[in-house]
Parts: sequence; structure tokens; C-alpha cells
Amino acid sequence: MNIMEPTIPTPERGQRGPVEHERREQIIRAADEHFSRYGYNKTTVADLAKAIGVSSAYVYRFFESKQAIGEAVCAMTLARIDGPMMEIATGPQSATDRLRSLYRWLMEEGMRLFFDERKLHEIVVVAVRDRWPPVLRHKQLILEAVRLVVADGRTSGEFERKTPLDEVARAITATTEPFAHPVLLEQKDPADLEAGMVAVSNLVLRSLAP
Amino acid sequence: MNIMEPTIPTPERGQRGPVEHERREQIIRAADEHFSRYGYNKTTVADLAKAIGVSSAYVYRFFESKQAIGEAVCAMTLARIDGPMMEIATGPQSATDRLRSLYRWLMEEGMRLFFDERKLHEIVVVAVRDRWPPVLRHKQLILEAVRLVVADGRTSGEFERKTPLDEVARAITATTEPFAHPVLLEQKDPADLEAGMVAVSNLVLRSLAP
Repeated sequence: MNIMEPTIPTPERGQRGPVEHERREQIIRAADEHFSRYGYNKTTVADLAKAIGVSSAYVYRFFESKQAIGEAVCAMTLARIDGPMMEIATGPQSATDRLRSLYRWLMEEGMRLFFDERKLHEIVVVAVRDRWPPVLRHKQLILEAVRLVVADGRTSGEFERKTPLDEVARAITATTEPFAHPVLLEQKDPADLEAGMVAVSNLVLRSLAP
Repeated sequence: MNIMEPTIPTPERGQRGPVEHERREQIIRAADEHFSRYGYNKTTVADLAKAIGVSSAYVYRFFESKQAIGEAVCAMTLARIDGPMMEIATGPQSATDRLRSLYRWLMEEGMRLFFDERKLHEIVVVAVRDRWPPVLRHKQLILEAVRLVVADGRTSGEFERKTPLDEVARAITATTEPFAHPVLLEQKDPADLEAGMVAVSNLVLRSLAP
């Protein structure tokens, strides 16, 4: 699985100024680095401005608040999960293998954030709690990835076709939460996660049998 | 479904003094009332002592800390969920109906805690985060309830018998989390919860078909 180069997302709620301005990108990269190292709460807009050699007022030309910068970093962090996830969902493997890979990818990326990038994990916990738009979009993308795979599996004859596709996609998406939700990952024994994830994906695949 | 009278649990980690002492029961009831009204964080051991007309030192003869009292209240709160849950699991209905009822019961009780008893919901959030023993026991009981129902459904011929029972029980238990975990309930749109819960229980029942 090759990790896609993180892309700078398009402007969001609370972001100002010329869309393609390279300063905007620079601010987001500085924020990503600062949040990764010091955490979202401990970083101020003044810290970010200082890091790239501009005034706070200048930063505010691009983002109306620290949260707006946080949302951009969160969107970039989730894009690192979502890009390969959509690659898996549209890949050449069987639908069965793709569904297994989706569960594994979501769990492994969730754990990577939690163990290797704890400070970015913190911002995602806040973002999920406060339903920031990048999180809602991430959830929507998981649902779309699952729907794509299930639809392909119906076409190929791997999966049953009687149950409404929307109902199945929604249910499967819910069953990824115990292995992908940042707060649940914090609370679980990592040794149990893998076995639980495999057990759930097996259960779901038995459910999809024609 | 009749709600069982909450029972005072047996002494736990951090609790002292004669087991059956009625003062112990009185402290737990006062704490339940105080935590429900003012929240766990804002209640002190001195508040509880005052409410029942004894000294703080006297309370410490029974509980070594406020958290020990919190654990007892948490155990009582969860017992209100677990008692009827085990009644459902061992009831006369078909295994299929019992499994549906388990999902519904866990979701409705989780929402009742969150909406009607917000202050007790707070203590459960802390208890889940910090893995207090009553929470671990509650999770173990959910697993046992699920295992019982699945085993009965295998005996009655409602469910398949090929997959290891432990694996199935574990997977089903994980799929209740999106509708029963206190933090996830906080973050979801109540209107979506019901439909999601029904979709997941349908998915699981298709998976159990012989």
C-alpha cells in the first residue's frame, strides 16, 4: 500500500484569502508540524506566525481562528487515511478481500495516529467530539467506500442482493467504529483489537453471503 | 420489561468495613443522589458525610476514596442495565427476538442515561475511560448475554453452528458498541441511532442464518 502524498485540502469554513496562495499552504504545514510536536491546545496562532516569519495578523488573513487552522490540519490528516482507503475500495481485488482490507486499513491507521502521532490523535479526538466538517466528510467517505465494495460484490456474485444496499452499507460502516473511532481505540487493549476486527469482518462477510 | 430494583453491589476494591453495614448502603444511596444532582466532580466526601449526618472520617471507614464511592455508584447504575439484560438473554422468546431485544435494550438504556440522567452519564464516561472494574464486569456480562443467546439459537436451529461460538459472541458484542458506548452516544444524532441499530441487528441476524 503506497501512502499518497498528503494533499492540501481546498478552503473550508473559516478560511480566508486567495485560494491558491502558497502562504496558506505554508501555514497549514507549519501548523501540522507544531500540532504534531506540541499539541493543538498548546500551540497559538502567534507561534505559527513566528515559525514562518509573518505577523499573527497576516495569518488571520487566511484563517479566521486557530480552529479553522485546526480543521485544515485535521482534513490533511484524514486525507492520508481516505486516499488509500478509496484506492482499496476501487482496487482490482475481490470485493471480499477489499472489505477485509478496509477494516484493516481503518484500524491500522487509527492505531498509527494513536501510537505514533499522539499529538495529532488529540486533534482528531477534539474534531470527532465537536463534529468538525472534515470528520463528517471522512465518515461520509467511509460509507461511500463500503457501498462501492458491496455494490461490486453484488455484481460479481460474491454477495447477496436482497437487502437494500443503503441499509447494508450503513450497518457495515457502523461495525467499523469499534476499531476506528479514536476514543474507542484509546480504551482498548491493542492485543484484543486485531482479533476483534477479524472476528467482526468474518461475521459481516458471512452476512453478505448470497 | 420491568426494571429490577437496583441492588447494592458487594464490596469492591477500595471499600472497607463490615460488608453488610447499613451505613455503607446509606453512603452509596446518598452518593447516587448527589452524583445524579450535582455530578461526580462537584461532590466531595464531606458533602456526602454531611448529607447522612456523619463525619468524613466515618465515611472513610467504608470507602478509601471518593473514587471507591464512585465505583460503587457506577456498579449500581450498570446493574440497572445488566439485570434486565440477563432477563432478556434467558427469556422465553426465540433467540432471534432476544438478540434484537439486547441491541434495543443496550441502546435505550444508554440513551436514557445520557438524556435523563446526564450527571450519572458523566460518571460512566469517566468509568469507561479509566476502565473501572464495574465497567469491565458490565462488558463481560454483555459478552455472556450474547453468548447465551447465540448458543440457544444454535440449539433451536435458528442459527448456524459452524463458526466457533466464542468468535461469534465476541464479534456481536463489538457491534453493540456503536449504540451502547457512552461517548459514541454523545456524538451521534439520536434520529440516526435507531435506524443504525436496526440495520446492524439485521446484518448480524443474516450472518447467523444456518
